[in-house]
Amino acid sequence: MKQQEMYHNSFESSFREPFGAAPKGSIVSIKIDIPDHYDAQEVFLHYIYDRTEEHHKVEMTPSKRAHDYPTYEVTISMPNQPQLVWYYFEVGANQGTLYYGRVDGQVSGEGRVYTHIPPSWQITVYDPSFTTPNWWKNATMYQIFPDRFHIGKEPLVNKAPKSSLLHAHWDNEPIYIRNEAGDVVRWDFFGGNLQGIIEKLDYIASLGVHVIYLNPIFEAESNHRYDTGDYHQIDGLLGTKEDFQQLLMEARKRGIEMMLDGVFSHTGSNSIYFNREGAYHSTGAYQSKQSPYYEWYTFYNYPDEYEAWWGIDTLPTVNKNNRSYQHFMVHDEDSVIKTWQRNGMKHWRLDVADELTDDFIRQIYRQLKKENEDSVLLGEVWEDASNKTAYGQRRDYLLGGVLDSVMNYPLRKCMLDFVSNRIDAYALHRQLMTLKEHYPKSHFYSTMNLLSSHDVARIQTVLDSYLPETMTEEDRQMRLQKQVKALSLWLYAFPGVPSLYYGDEAGVTGGEDPENRKTYPWGAENQELVAWYRQLGALRNDYHVLRTGSWISRAIDSDIYGFERRIDYEQDEFGQEANNDHLVYVFNRHVQTKKITFPLRDGKWEHVLTKQVFSTIDGAITLSLSPGEGALLRYILL
Amino acid sequence: MKQQEMYHNSFESSFREPFGAAPKGSIVSIKIDIPDHYDAQEVFLHYIYDRTEEHHKVEMTPSKRAHDYPTYEVTISMPNQPQLVWYYFEVGANQGTLYYGRVDGQVSGEGRVYTHIPPSWQITVYDPSFTTPNWWKNATMYQIFPDRFHIGKEPLVNKAPKSSLLHAHWDNEPIYIRNEAGDVVRWDFFGGNLQGIIEKLDYIASLGVHVIYLNPIFEAESNHRYDTGDYHQIDGLLGTKEDFQQLLMEARKRGIEMMLDGVFSHTGSNSIYFNREGAYHSTGAYQSKQSPYYEWYTFYNYPDEYEAWWGIDTLPTVNKNNRSYQHFMVHDEDSVIKTWQRNGMKHWRLDVADELTDDFIRQIYRQLKKENEDSVLLGEVWEDASNKTAYGQRRDYLLGGVLDSVMNYPLRKCMLDFVSNRIDAYALHRQLMTLKEHYPKSHFYSTMNLLSSHDVARIQTVLDSYLPETMTEEDRQMRLQKQVKALSLWLYAFPGVPSLYYGDEAGVTGGEDPENRKTYPWGAENQELVAWYRQLGALRNDYHVLRTGSWISRAIDSDIYGFERRIDYEQDEFGQEANNDHLVYVFNRHVQTKKITFPLRDGKWEHVLTKQVFSTIDGAITLSLSPGEGALLRYILL
Repeated sequence: MKQQEMYHNSFESSFREPFGAAPKGSIVSIKIDIPDHYDAQEVFLHYIYDRTEEHHKVEMTPSKRAHDYPTYEVTISMPNQPQLVWYYFEVGANQGTLYYGRVDGQVSGEGRVYTHIPPSWQITVYDPSFTTPNWWKNATMYQIFPDRFHIGKEPLVNKAPKSSLLHAHWDNEPIYIRNEAGDVVRWDFFGGNLQGIIEKLDYIASLGVHVIYLNPIFEAESNHRYDTGDYHQIDGLLGTKEDFQQLLMEARKRGIEMMLDGVFSHTGSNSIYFNREGAYHSTGAYQSKQSPYYEWYTFYNYPDEYEAWWGIDTLPTVNKNNRSYQHFMVHDEDSVIKTWQRNGMKHWRLDVADELTDDFIRQIYRQLKKENEDSVLLGEVWEDASNKTAYGQRRDYLLGGVLDSVMNYPLRKCMLDFVSNRIDAYALHRQLMTLKEHYPKSHFYSTMNLLSSHDVARIQTVLDSYLPETMTEEDRQMRLQKQVKALSLWLYAFPGVPSLYYGDEAGVTGGEDPENRKTYPWGAENQELVAWYRQLGALRNDYHVLRTGSWISRAIDSDIYGFERRIDYEQDEFGQEANNDHLVYVFNRHVQTKKITFPLRDGKWEHVLTKQVFSTIDGAITLSLSPGEGALLRYILL
Repeated sequence: MKQQEMYHNSFESSFREPFGAAPKGSIVSIKIDIPDHYDAQEVFLHYIYDRTEEHHKVEMTPSKRAHDYPTYEVTISMPNQPQLVWYYFEVGANQGTLYYGRVDGQVSGEGRVYTHIPPSWQITVYDPSFTTPNWWKNATMYQIFPDRFHIGKEPLVNKAPKSSLLHAHWDNEPIYIRNEAGDVVRWDFFGGNLQGIIEKLDYIASLGVHVIYLNPIFEAESNHRYDTGDYHQIDGLLGTKEDFQQLLMEARKRGIEMMLDGVFSHTGSNSIYFNREGAYHSTGAYQSKQSPYYEWYTFYNYPDEYEAWWGIDTLPTVNKNNRSYQHFMVHDEDSVIKTWQRNGMKHWRLDVADELTDDFIRQIYRQLKKENEDSVLLGEVWEDASNKTAYGQRRDYLLGGVLDSVMNYPLRKCMLDFVSNRIDAYALHRQLMTLKEHYPKSHFYSTMNLLSSHDVARIQTVLDSYLPETMTEEDRQMRLQKQVKALSLWLYAFPGVPSLYYGDEAGVTGGEDPENRKTYPWGAENQELVAWYRQLGALRNDYHVLRTGSWISRAIDSDIYGFERRIDYEQDEFGQEANNDHLVYVFNRHVQTKKITFPLRDGKWEHVLTKQVFSTIDGAITLSLSPGEGALLRYILL
């Protein structure tokens, strides 16, 4: 018989209370069980303030015996400055000093014994005076890559950048046009524009969308427009400032907010500011050291060698600490942020947030919120944003006053790791619980949750790559359709903002860039899928519980993962009044149909989509899930 | 004192009579001087029939002493079958057997002594019953690369091939779009079309043009359209068959003939015939061995390995000996040639003529002439077309009944070799005289003479590459302008059809493909140059002598080359009545101004362009030529 082990599990309230991130200056109680055979003499909790590296060691006191083990306990105060707090345990035992820590640097929950200083648990200490806007937590997002969505009545071809190549046909495949050295020498455009988006606003609204995130729309040379030429101009091929205002107004009429892509880490080399080609009537940094923009950039060897994003010389990086740059972006009367605020633009997504400083992001955040508290600032972060380190610097993204939201690539990764059998449902559960633990609650409910984006392969293509080559085409399409539905249902039933990347709802496929930037197939949509996403949008909007109800993760067996969403006591997770409600989502990643029985609140449950009704028997429910099937059941009172 | 040498010079009538190519069955008299010190016992002329390799050895008989040497002479009959005849001399001398032959395989004229069998002189024996059309010898040509000339009122973008990329701006630079393996994966189009040409016919006519040569216009996937998809259709992006007929009609109204590019050596892989992509509703050779087109192609390993032009797999080559192919192209009622004849198309340029068989070319020739004797068949040949060998086979291009004309790349090479100091005026003279000697006269007066084409760098860019880098930009532009004028004047004053590659007259530059396929700069033309070419066109049309007057080559000093054009006895070289006339062209390739004096018919000479009048003194004229300057003087009676 295996000997009992020490035990602490950060997910359980009997070991850590309260769960997860903690407000600054608050109290957290931490417990550990030490079985008798260790003959513990002293038990210490070590906790370290991440910012100051202040190391605390406090003795834990034995308390009531729980589950037959003696439990040690201590209550610690969180620092008044938001930051991470790390903790682990030291046990003076009969065999000598032992440690108990997290199993690794990635996942939280249960720990294990070490004979040396172990990995720590994390407590995210945040400033609760900052919260994320309520509308945002309730929002559904639609992401548009502007060149590829829709061409309005009047194409603006003659406004395309100088060396553009335009696809003759909307259904062409995008392409990178490189020279022998591999440099992109021309950009391919399809000519989607702002009027095109305006014409499709009713369609977008029909998907239950509340916010459209637009990839960059400022004047630039490339089709992605991340190489800004002029932050104060709408790109001519997309339209005019008037088109943009019309887009905002028409969207607002339909209850849709707009979010812009803020590319503030670098400019284009062909820009007012750098002006390498001399195409602008400005004195650019490349042209003269007397340029007002000279100090924005870092030259190694003037003017041809300079710091550039990923070494791509068309994207010279900007020194975000430069005052003149900060003023240009945020503080001047005609700063980029203020200019667009005056044009009605409240919400921004910060491209490559890791490349910006927290200080600079805070400046943007403050300027946005000063004008409108409901403004949202979202950051492009690819990993767990709570403990992200960039350039040796711990980032404050989620501590309050920095970002409202981050792109939830970790969720996408978890989902795909699970579908592709890289992890089982138990590991998935633990990873998602870790995210929940690390993120302040208002951030956990504010992440931008996505299956596809302009930076990753589209979901259908990713899923396709997991399927065996031997499958018949018909089976393959059926399975894919089922999986896409299951995963999108998961996303729309999950806390945070579900984001739909234009075209995913129409069955558009595509691997990594540029394949993931194909055009929206107007007239050739997968109509069944469009209808599905409309249903999802409606579902999300109809059920308050899916947005801000509590979230309870459930690994049912190694192939079946699920979660519950609940509102009890007529109040959601943020104290808003709401009807009690209880749903459970389950998903079968297995290649065979699985009949599963799992404990669930006693009563009747209705399959939200098929309307089939299930009853619990002895506190458990039984249902069958075909391969790749996801189901959403709702507790009903008959 | 150097000892006197044996001497034969094919250019001189005292050594070979008549000059140059000889009608089949005609008589040619050949002489050689053998100085006394050789103590010649016997002198033989060896002559070989190229086709049959029949070797003749005839003894030459001493005749009158000319220029202090004993002259040996023999008269030989040319074979009745057109072919080349090669000859050299054998001398039984006191030192043993000596030979006298051509200095090398390239240039004719004077020979030298050998101790072994020497290179031979060439007599091109042709069939005089075939002549080239008279209108053609008098024509001026304008070559158009259709995608790049002009877009008519209605762009036909939606008719562009599937994967086309269209330049957003007419003034963009063309580009090849390749994948990492170097294969072209997309084609860039500017969208020039037939209506665009129609709209510019008055402009073309203003250049004094009589024939427009169009690069391919049949349905194809690429921008150059050498990958024919359907020989019976006008490419959709260019227009319709109706547009084509309108173009023919409107051109005819202005006295302009049209010539099409016949790409008969290969088809596109994406074609009715091969149909590799399955884009056509036909059963292509790639798709089935039952395809009616299967036997046109040569498969190494069906269907993916096949013979292709230069190994480019989008251009599968066709077996020109295949009966079905010949019928499709020439003989069927709806053959390609007949179909377009019915549509009014009489003149063709045969792409890569070397890849076609003479037999196949003859079939096309016959069909063209049967319908209209004035039809012209021009071949793409890059070298001396009189003795061209392709695939081990001597070609009959100029022997009669095959081609009317060839692209005169040898002339272009001579001119550029001279300008760039690779050869001096004496070598140039000899090379051009060789061409004159080798080509039957009606062919010499029918070549398509060009400075630029879609296959070579544009003249201005070539000339630019010869100039020193140290030159100031202003000097450079002045020199270039002067040189371009001098060389174009040369071309328009030379026997044969001067061809103007669209845009050259507007100052368009560009290196090799794709740079030489830039768009015509409507509205941004070099107006001085346009006016110059108009003047040239008028000159050519005004002066009969420049077209079919005799041509006398003149190397004046190593840096000054020139030629005379004459009509005497009121008859041109082809027996047409004409006014007597006499012009002389001279060109200074030197980097400094040169004052030259050279013998010229006594009298007054007027500089045709400046109207300055020069008088001969003691049978010689004196004039100054600045660097790169060309002058055309005309004998005037005051």
